[in-house]
Amino acid sequence: MSTTTPIDLQTLFVRAREASRWLPRCDRVAGLHAVAEALLEHRDAILSANRRDVEAEQRKGTPGPLVDRLQLTQERLQGIAEAVRLVAALPDPLDRVLAGWRLENGLEIRKVTVPFGVIGMIYESRPNVTVDAAALALKAGSAAILRGSANALASNRVLVRVMRQALAAAGVPEEALQLIDSPERKLVTELLSARGKVDLVIPRGGASLIDHVVENAKVPVIETGIGNCHVYVDRDADLDKAAHIIYNAKVQRPGVCNSAETLLVHERVAAAFLPRALAELRSAGVEIIACERTRELFSEALPAGREDWATEYLDLKLAVRVVPSLDEAIRHINTYGSMHSEAIVTESRADARRFQQEVDAAAVFVNASTRFTDGFVFGFGAEIGISTQKLHARGPMGLAEMTTYKYLIDGDGQVRG
Amino acid sequence: MSTTTPIDLQTLFVRAREASRWLPRCDRVAGLHAVAEALLEHRDAILSANRRDVEAEQRKGTPGPLVDRLQLTQERLQGIAEAVRLVAALPDPLDRVLAGWRLENGLEIRKVTVPFGVIGMIYESRPNVTVDAAALALKAGSAAILRGSANALASNRVLVRVMRQALAAAGVPEEALQLIDSPERKLVTELLSARGKVDLVIPRGGASLIDHVVENAKVPVIETGIGNCHVYVDRDADLDKAAHIIYNAKVQRPGVCNSAETLLVHERVAAAFLPRALAELRSAGVEIIACERTRELFSEALPAGREDWATEYLDLKLAVRVVPSLDEAIRHINTYGSMHSEAIVTESRADARRFQQEVDAAAVFVNASTRFTDGFVFGFGAEIGISTQKLHARGPMGLAEMTTYKYLIDGDGQVRG
Repeated sequence: MSTTTPIDLQTLFVRAREASRWLPRCDRVAGLHAVAEALLEHRDAILSANRRDVEAEQRKGTPGPLVDRLQLTQERLQGIAEAVRLVAALPDPLDRVLAGWRLENGLEIRKVTVPFGVIGMIYESRPNVTVDAAALALKAGSAAILRGSANALASNRVLVRVMRQALAAAGVPEEALQLIDSPERKLVTELLSARGKVDLVIPRGGASLIDHVVENAKVPVIETGIGNCHVYVDRDADLDKAAHIIYNAKVQRPGVCNSAETLLVHERVAAAFLPRALAELRSAGVEIIACERTRELFSEALPAGREDWATEYLDLKLAVRVVPSLDEAIRHINTYGSMHSEAIVTESRADARRFQQEVDAAAVFVNASTRFTDGFVFGFGAEIGISTQKLHARGPMGLAEMTTYKYLIDGDGQVRG
Repeated sequence: MSTTTPIDLQTLFVRAREASRWLPRCDRVAGLHAVAEALLEHRDAILSANRRDVEAEQRKGTPGPLVDRLQLTQERLQGIAEAVRLVAALPDPLDRVLAGWRLENGLEIRKVTVPFGVIGMIYESRPNVTVDAAALALKAGSAAILRGSANALASNRVLVRVMRQALAAAGVPEEALQLIDSPERKLVTELLSARGKVDLVIPRGGASLIDHVVENAKVPVIETGIGNCHVYVDRDADLDKAAHIIYNAKVQRPGVCNSAETLLVHERVAAAFLPRALAELRSAGVEIIACERTRELFSEALPAGREDWATEYLDLKLAVRVVPSLDEAIRHINTYGSMHSEAIVTESRADARRFQQEVDAAAVFVNASTRFTDGFVFGFGAEIGISTQKLHARGPMGLAEMTTYKYLIDGDGQVRG
């Protein structure tokens, strides 16, 4: 098995490519159900490998929340297996005819969804991503080359071994699932340079991982997950809705990319809105970092610097700024935002329309929390990540976004005149 | 005007971005008609600048066909202006609702086409690309940053100046059109590194240009135009159709990316097909470079080496190989092809289906010439290039492929539970 021999990435690329040629014609659904079953069957081996990873981190003194992200439990493993079954049950994203037409010369053209082929995934510590990414790639008909983080390597080795065995037993080529079984950093560079061998790399993790991948990739990449999201309270806002929405967008789950990081408030409603809304946030433990005008209205706020407008806190912290106009709110968002999720709270139809047209982001909300940007919420049934670039896919990426297409053209001897 | 001051690319990126914010709400159609008119009105200035470029190349002893690509004439300029009017007349690709649905909580989601924002174009000598790329980008609602080749700089300067003046007079921001007005190579690197400032770069040109761009870009790129295309004559082929198709695919316009470079022939029909088909090609001046088995059937053929299978000749040259099976034909194409356009000639439904399913290319033809892969032929009304990558767009790219999308979500105070 490739997971126990020394790493030769080039060989691994070739094996993944060859396996990918067969995948669309295999029973991938049976393969995924076999994977789900095997994960439960081999739970002892998986949990014991994971315990080694966890203990190594604890010895290093890694903070509790980070260790927790790494940890698998019987219950979590059950959830992971269940998620694989849900992916298996989703409609097949392949061979969907996106468009079809006939030319005057009789040629018939069909535009049909097909797999990417080989998808690389680079991600951080959570071992559940290993299973999740594998299941989504396989369901989308592509081979997966997984590169997790060094501190989850023992867990990932066992998870991939168990999944490969299950796939093989179900008649799906095990080589369609590859683990880069080494913490060496130069292997990431090699993966990112594999033009023609790897069709797409999706990074999942924090800003520095994403930056490293985007800066160094020569293969196509989808940039995901950095969310410097804003809620803008317009002068025509319903202030109850506004308070409700910013509270939800900040507090409900502050560590995720679609949570809000900055609150912008029109100056006409600042005095009526800010003291009350910020007190509510403060009582939920949110630290307020604000412009001068906000601080005059809410003395507990700390002063904000320019860098605060550009920061994704991922924490119970909120930057707050009073703006003189809708224009300035849009300008602020287009300057500092990460093109992820942006919300306006307003009862003005005109302001809502302008905000949706002019704010440059994957998802632009009117009178709703930014927290709704999510493949499951959107009804995609799955999510490999949230794209913050404009090429190929924007916002939540489900199975449809993990496919590409080709044109099939049928003729009867036509040549070009 | 920025085209006469020293180049500060960062300033130019900012101007293009600001202009791009207004473009979707400008009368871009009026702007393009004004451009078409101005190109004719200022024909003397354009042709005289072009003469300087042409004369400089002639003094350098550049071969005639290359000089011809650079040259503008009254007639060519007329054609260029006419092409701008055709682009102006195409349906607006923006604000199309691609999908829309309602969630159980009442949120209404629309997926709507929007512009990329700022598109960089890097291309080689033909000055018509300067106008073509500008017109397509503007029609697609994006600002364009153009980088042509040094030998067309005098032409491009005048073309861009004329177009900018026309845009401004029509109320479209002239800063939406930017020329990188210097042959310095480091400016290309700066363009390719402009993450967040340039949303997409499209290279148009030969293999070395494309490679340079793909290897060095940190911004999203669409790889275009390399076409190592094959025609495979199956054992069940109609040999008349086959001869007709390979002749057209090779001879009709050998210098373009969708022409065929390799002919593969099933061994069962090789003796019946090759002597006759190759004699026809030979009499049209095609040089035949072939495997041993072909050379036994056609003595004029030169011996082929492994590199011939991988070469895009773009010339009256054809590599020819006899293959033992459909499997081997597919394997050959997936090994050496550039995922552009591939054709099978067969009367077997089963073989046609397998070829279309298993060949990994943007366009897979049955019983038709590879030459049909073209945005105009496909009915897109325009073409910025032919993508040979899988991310975002595959095959001919028209206006639809030059847009991205965003999600607009309308609520009434919804928060996530």
